[in-house]
This record gives sequence, structure tokens and C-alpha cells, in this order.
Amino acid sequence: MSDRSTTHPAGALVLGAEPVAGVGEEVRSADPRTGAPLEPAYRAASVEQIDRACELAEEAFASFRSTTAEQRAGFLERIAELLDDRRDLLVERAHLETALPVARLTGEVGRTSGQLRLFAAELRAGTWQGARIDPGRSGATPRADIRQRRVALGPVVVFGASNFPLAFSTAGGDTASALAAGCPVIVKAHPAHLGTAELVARAIADAVADTGMPAGTFSQLVGIGNDIGTRLAADPRIRAVGFTGSRRGGLALAAVAAARPVPIPVYAEMSSINPVLLLPAALAERGAELGAGFAGSLTLGAGQFCTNPGLVLAVEGPGLDAFVDAAAGAVAANAGAVMLTTDIAGHYDAAGTALAARDGVGQVACGARPDGAAAAAARLLTVDGSRFLAEPELQAEVFGATSLLVRCADTAELTAAVGMLEGQLTATVHAADADHPLAAALLPLLEERAGRILFGGWPTGVEVGHAMVHGGPFPATTDARTTSVGTLAIERFLRPVAYQDVPSALLPAEVRDDNPLGVWRRVDGEPGRDALPAD
Amino acid sequence: MSDRSTTHPAGALVLGAEPVAGVGEEVRSADPRTGAPLEPAYRAASVEQIDRACELAEEAFASFRSTTAEQRAGFLERIAELLDDRRDLLVERAHLETALPVARLTGEVGRTSGQLRLFAAELRAGTWQGARIDPGRSGATPRADIRQRRVALGPVVVFGASNFPLAFSTAGGDTASALAAGCPVIVKAHPAHLGTAELVARAIADAVADTGMPAGTFSQLVGIGNDIGTRLAADPRIRAVGFTGSRRGGLALAAVAAARPVPIPVYAEMSSINPVLLLPAALAERGAELGAGFAGSLTLGAGQFCTNPGLVLAVEGPGLDAFVDAAAGAVAANAGAVMLTTDIAGHYDAAGTALAARDGVGQVACGARPDGAAAAAARLLTVDGSRFLAEPELQAEVFGATSLLVRCADTAELTAAVGMLEGQLTATVHAADADHPLAAALLPLLEERAGRILFGGWPTGVEVGHAMVHGGPFPATTDARTTSVGTLAIERFLRPVAYQDVPSALLPAEVRDDNPLGVWRRVDGEPGRDALPAD
Repeated sequence: MSDRSTTHPAGALVLGAEPVAGVGEEVRSADPRTGAPLEPAYRAASVEQIDRACELAEEAFASFRSTTAEQRAGFLERIAELLDDRRDLLVERAHLETALPVARLTGEVGRTSGQLRLFAAELRAGTWQGARIDPGRSGATPRADIRQRRVALGPVVVFGASNFPLAFSTAGGDTASALAAGCPVIVKAHPAHLGTAELVARAIADAVADTGMPAGTFSQLVGIGNDIGTRLAADPRIRAVGFTGSRRGGLALAAVAAARPVPIPVYAEMSSINPVLLLPAALAERGAELGAGFAGSLTLGAGQFCTNPGLVLAVEGPGLDAFVDAAAGAVAANAGAVMLTTDIAGHYDAAGTALAARDGVGQVACGARPDGAAAAAARLLTVDGSRFLAEPELQAEVFGATSLLVRCADTAELTAAVGMLEGQLTATVHAADADHPLAAALLPLLEERAGRILFGGWPTGVEVGHAMVHGGPFPATTDARTTSVGTLAIERFLRPVAYQDVPSALLPAEVRDDNPLGVWRRVDGEPGRDALPAD
Repeated sequence: MSDRSTTHPAGALVLGAEPVAGVGEEVRSADPRTGAPLEPAYRAASVEQIDRACELAEEAFASFRSTTAEQRAGFLERIAELLDDRRDLLVERAHLETALPVARLTGEVGRTSGQLRLFAAELRAGTWQGARIDPGRSGATPRADIRQRRVALGPVVVFGASNFPLAFSTAGGDTASALAAGCPVIVKAHPAHLGTAELVARAIADAVADTGMPAGTFSQLVGIGNDIGTRLAADPRIRAVGFTGSRRGGLALAAVAAARPVPIPVYAEMSSINPVLLLPAALAERGAELGAGFAGSLTLGAGQFCTNPGLVLAVEGPGLDAFVDAAAGAVAANAGAVMLTTDIAGHYDAAGTALAARDGVGQVACGARPDGAAAAAARLLTVDGSRFLAEPELQAEVFGATSLLVRCADTAELTAAVGMLEGQLTATVHAADADHPLAAALLPLLEERAGRILFGGWPTGVEVGHAMVHGGPFPATTDARTTSVGTLAIERFLRPVAYQDVPSALLPAEVRDDNPLGVWRRVDGEPGRDALPAD
């Protein structure tokens, strides 16, 4: 079977884990360097194919969610293995479609397979099941025997992201966590990297076959415009949506989901400018070093990260001048890059130009713009703190390597600026020891506004682990109560069920007295892995 | 201070933990036995008072959420103590306003104070904080040090329920869990029991003063119609809504919340008919006994429970006849009861009459209707399984002591009926040993449709503990991912935040290396309470 899908992309959708041809209008990804359409051509899914994907997912749900955690772990590991096996092919295709560097894409394959393996490990550990047991008591107040575990929500639609063709797309964090939870997944492939999406979808389809999962566990569809997304999010068989992309796109899906006869959760990761706070003592100590580090984070990957530092809040002083000199030098010397698509480059240019043209906004530095259809230049702009406080529009995201430096007159103005920030994925603080009292005062403001708070680093680079939060208050996401990266992400696709006085033989294994799976449980509130004592 | 608020209700709102008079139109609760308006008169909150409550809540949020878990536990316990101290006064007033029996209301005070104490214990245990630590590693793949905990969402609006004037109202589960989480609360008092609401609100206000909480931690407003609710749910300072009531009311609030510039979660517990499944062997074994038990659950508290058994699905046979005889006898002999309000009684009567008038629906038994403005009679209706399968409208909730018995021709029809059920708070199964194979086949269908599955009991009576789920798929609630009863309810008002490379001195105590609070944490994924080993 090893050569099943190890060829170049063929222009296929995946329907119930089988490659099929679309029948709608032609869709092609383009080479962002030249704008030229790429082979192969794809055809959009028809209304019937969308319906069929939902039908297959619904059919698969009952048996897929009833697989054991061990079985689903094996499935995720098989996907990871196939992605690693086909790494060179994936990287080659993704490089063609996205112009992202080969080294970065190679790392991203590892990140994607690593993420699948982390969820496999999480499945085996079993903590995700949230098992709780309140054993019935025969004391003065008779109580029922009540046991709780989490069950899967149902079929999930995932919208692949443009900027991580692997780690946030077809087999990315949303898909991995939904499959781990026991939810069948339908991916709407991002049109910017259809070939990469097909190769990954075929790996998932092969893993479905290899591990005996029901066919409807996975489908991937192709389409252009909002129609396909709206149709999927509105389908009654779909129970949740995962999305990474623009604020406009996320809000549109959230509106569709809220207007359904039966509303469903939408986990949209949308818009964040990721403020960086430069506190006075840190600036005085290492302003130039910070300027260079900042420029590196800003221009990494053409600035196409959800966590790109699009806003710098700093207090006036000699340290800030050193920061600006170093950052300006690095930005001016930056060679620029080809962005993911000509659309993204166009939006980037227009949004940056609009921001630069606002009253009071000045340009500190602009980098070079290389040749290429989707090429773009890095840019550093600046504005006074007083104006930033007066104009919330200055917080609009410019997706790409443009950042706005806000020069605050003093720490009071810096604090006020933090107090008016919208919700963010990240907030970064550079603080020397002498800044700690100020940092301590700012922390609660940041906690209310960001999903992740960093000290002394840069926000780009999201580690995949147990403690990561890649999420945050609106408009960073539509649902701040969770994360789209890290093992906590599985909880997005689960809901609790209580079992009252259910006979032992009918109870799910994770809440049986003898704890055959050895999972962590709260018994009368106290965590542990022991079996319940015999009566 | 003990006599501050131990007098009868005075017609006050509570604004920032201080009694104040409303300034809008007059509002009164009524005696449901007579329909007569009760003293004292209340006046609705003005737009300015609503705004002021939100302002106070926002002001209080920063300091309230920064109180220690121990401090908030003390606050909740003080509320519990004051409620217990004032029990007789509460019961007397609630009995006047609701016509619920004194014994039931006495128990409900205990349930309410017990619930507050349970959340106090949960706060001290600390598991609710969801602490996770991924210590940075110096191995081949350098990783950042990342730590996660949960923080409070912000001010919460709670809409008191009509049917639990204590346990689901001013100091009920929504308020207790939101306060536990560190969220200030604004209650919109239910107009059916304004005096009870005032007495409880004053106890909370006294507890705020006694334990030094910020004044804006708690307010209670009065108003009529949708205006006040819409205004509160739309206010930008409000970050979540808890609601128990009608489907129409819950959906209206959810629509307001979704349409805000910054959407917020709405936890609305709305509509459930709580199916009871009678499997053949159980019917054959104890049909008459089940009929009597069912009628008791149906008519308890005039059927005014969210978990009232409004639907019975049973397979034809002699056991079913015995069930029907016993249930019909008990319903016919039922003396009826005075419902909570004349509005509720009117809706009950209209909805039951409409259901009884549908083609194919027959009446099995009807109880007596006592005197009283809000009096109502219990009613048992029946319909064939084939018609039930064809008409989803037969699932409409009749809030009160009316139930529909669906006579299924065989277990296949019963299974099909279960498969078309809407989301439910509960599903109850009566199964003898011989029914276990059928029960095992039905369980996954029930898990997909209900928040709590009971074997061998009745759904009325919701135990407050760690494992309880009082929630379920739409339309039982607007958010099936949680519960409004039990300690898991606290998670509705929290969101995770990650701390990356934050200096130890600035870290929240629950994620510090030395674990000074002794809370459970996942370190590299593994639960435990140990301090981190020193490097």
C-alpha cells in the first residue's frame, strides 16, 4: 500500500476517505512568485458532494466516537507516520504553493506530526475525559450514584488557514483535536494550497483505511467564495466549526452558526496585533538588542503569523531611541519577501498604506520589496501615545510585516494604552528587574486582554504542549474559553454527560469502579487513579 | 449587625450591595392562590440604575477577581450562613409568593446554602484553576517555560428562575458559580418572587460588607418585560449571561449576545421534556409500580421542574397496560396544585389543551383542579409511536404536570423515537436485567441527546455535587458544553491564560514552582500536587 498516495497531487477532493473529482467550477492555486496558476486543476464540490460529505460524517459519527481512545491514538499516529514518510513531497508542493522557505516547511511537517502524536498521548493519558464520580452514599441524606465523562459533539468542519499550510490546515490542530475527541472532520481546503491540502488529505484517508476507521471520519472539499463555507456551517449534521483566518470570515461563520435552528459553537481564531510592551528599565538596559530582536520577529515569514508583533508600546527615553535605531536599521535592511498569495499581499499593502496615511502616523523605516507577484516590504510606523489613546482605529490588524510603534510620554500613558486594547492572542512584556513593580501592575490588564503573556521573548512561535493557550478575548477569537493549540484544544469538541445509578455493566469504562483504563478521575472531588473501594 | 436585613422585604433593589429604591414603573409580585398583588410595591430600575449597576460591577471586577480563593470561599460561606440564619423569613415569604409547600422551600434554603458551601470547598481544592505547567527544557529542542491557569471572564448577569425561588434565583447556582469564579454578578430578579429575591439579595449584600468584598460585586435589579434584560445582555461591561427559563426568553438573550460588537457567552437552560424509556422486561416486572412512581414525579411541585417527565416512551404489552392503569389512577386522583403564577398556569393550560387536541392524541387521565387563581390539573395524554415519529411538534414542552405517553409497537419503533428526540436535560431508562442489551444499544443515542442519563429513578431532583450535569444539547440549553448545577458550573465563567517565561515573582501562586496553595496541576501533562523539583 505504500505507494497509494505518494505521487504528486491529482486534483482530487476526498469524500469519505476516498479521492473523487469535484464537479463544480475550476479552482487552482497559484505560484505567489509569479501569480501563475498551478497544475493540477481542481473542481469545486457540488451541492450534492457537500451534502454527501455531511451524510458520511453523520453516518460515521456513532462508530467513530465509540472507538477506544487507544484506537483513535493509533489512527492519529498513523496519520503522523504517513506525513513524516511523505515529508519531502509535502514540502516540495507547499514550497511551490506558498513560497515559504523549505526549512520552515520541513519544520512544519514535524510540528504537524508531533501535534498528532501529542494528542495520541493525551488520548492514552485519559485526563481529557474529565471523569468524575460521586459515589452514592448511604448516610443521613441518601444520594444517587452520579458519574460524569465527556462525549464527542459530532461532525466538525475545519477551515484550513493560509499561513500554516500544514500545522493549521488539513491535518492541523483543529483536525487533530477534533479527531482525538471522536468527531468526524470535513476540511474545507484553503484555495492557496490545494495541492498540499490534497496530499495531506490523502494521508489521512490512507490512515483511515489502515486503522479501520469508518470512511466518513474524514472528507476534504474544495470551493471558492463563501457559499461552501456557509453551506457547511449551516448543515444540521455539523456540530462545531474550527476556523483560522480573517475577522470578516470568522464573524460570517459565527453569524451563520448562531442563526441555525440549532446553534453550534464556532472556534474562530481571527485577528490580533499582539502588543509588545517595552518597559523603561529594559529599554535602558538593552534598547538596541530589543530593536534587533523585534525586527526579527516582525519580518519572520513575511510577518504572516497570527502572533506577529503588530504593535509596540514603549515609554519615551534614550533607551527607546536605541530601540528605534536598531529596529529601523533592521527593517530598512530587510530584503522583503513573497507573501502567500497576491490577495494577501494586496490587502497587506492597502492596509499598511491606509495606516501610514492616518494623521499623526509617521514612517520610521521601510524595507525593500523584492520581485514577485505577491512580494511585500516590511514597514515600521510610529504614533504618539496621546493619539493612540484617542483613535481605536489604530488597532486595526495589518496582516504582514508592518508594526506600529506607540511612543508613550510616560508609564501612565502606557498603562492607559494597555487598558484600551482589544482582545489579543498574545501580549509580550520586556521588563528588567527594576520594571517588576510596573509589570506587576500591568499583568492583570494583560490577563483580561490576552490568551498568552510572554516575558522577554517574542510572540511568534507557538509551542505545542499541555499549557499553551493560543486563543484570547474577542476579536482574537470568537470563544476565549479555549485554545486552538495544545492539548486543552480537545475540550472544544466535547461535552459532559452524567450517568445516574447506571448499572456497572452499562457504564463507560472510564467511570467504572475498577477504573480499567487507569484514567485520572475526581472521586467526590478528589483527583486520583485508584479503583473505587469495594462496598 | 445581625438585625440589618432580617426584616420583611421593603421594596428595594440592591445597587452595589446597598438597598436603593427603583424609580421606574411599579412592579409587584402576586399571590398565586388569589392573584392579588402583594406588598411591598417595587419600582423598576431606571436606565441610569441599570447603567450604574454595570459600572459598579466593572469597577469591582479588578479587585474582586484578584481576591484569593480562600477569601471568596469565606464570602460564599458567609452568604450561606446568612441564608440559613434567615431561613424562616425566606420560607415564609417564598411560600406567600410561590405557593410552593413550606417543606419544599425549607429544603430549598438548605440546598441553596449547601450549594454555596460546595463552591467554597471547590475554591479551596483549587482543581477549578486548571493549572498546567510545561517546564522549559534544555534538551535538543529548546522549549519555553509555559504555565496555564484560568481567570474570571468579568461581570455576569443572572436571570432568576420562577420555579426555584432560592436555588436557581438570586443566590442560586448561576450566582454561586459566577461569584466563585471571581465574576461580579448583577441579578435580574424574577417578578414572581420579588420579596424573596430582595431578602436573598440583602443577605448577599450583607455578606459583601461582612467579608470586605468590593461593593460592585453584587447588584439586583427589578424590571418588567424584555427591555431590562436586553439592556443588561447588550451592555459592553457584561461578559456572560446565566439564564433559566423559557425557550423564547433564552433565545432572545442569545440573539442579543451574538449581535453585540463583542459577543459573549449565554448559558440559558430552557426547554426539556425529559423522556422516560420503559423497556419491556422492566414493564413486565413492575409496570404498576413504575406507573405510580412516574405519576409522583410528574405531579411533584405541580410539575414545575425543568426535569419534569413530559414524555414516556414505552413498548406495547401487558406491562404497559399495568403502567397505564396505575399512572392513570394516580393522575386522576391527584388533587392538582396552585402553580407559580397565573401566567404560568395559563400557558400550561393552553399548551396542554393544544397538545390534547392534536389528531391522534388521546387523554388517559386528568386530575382535579383546585381553587385558586393559578390552579392547574395534572394530565396524562397518549399517542401512537407511528404518529410521534411523524410529528416533531409533539415534542413541544408543556411546562407543568402534563405528560405524553408514546405507545411504541415494538423496540424498533421505540429506538426510532429516541433517535428523533431533541436535546434534553435528562433521559431516564427503566430496564430489568433482560433489557440490558436493548439499554446498551439505546445508551449512545441518549448520550447524544441528554446531559444526564438515569437508570431506575425519576428525573426530578437534581443532586448538587461534582459529577452532576444539569445541561444538555439544544434546546435544553444554548451551550451543551457545560452544566448549571454542580462544581463544573464554575468553568462557564473562566478562560485559560498562558504565562510564557514569566519571572517566578510575577507568576500567579497556583502555577509557581513551589505550589504554595497545594493545588492539583498537570506538570508536563501529569496530574499532581508536588512542588516542581529545583533545577
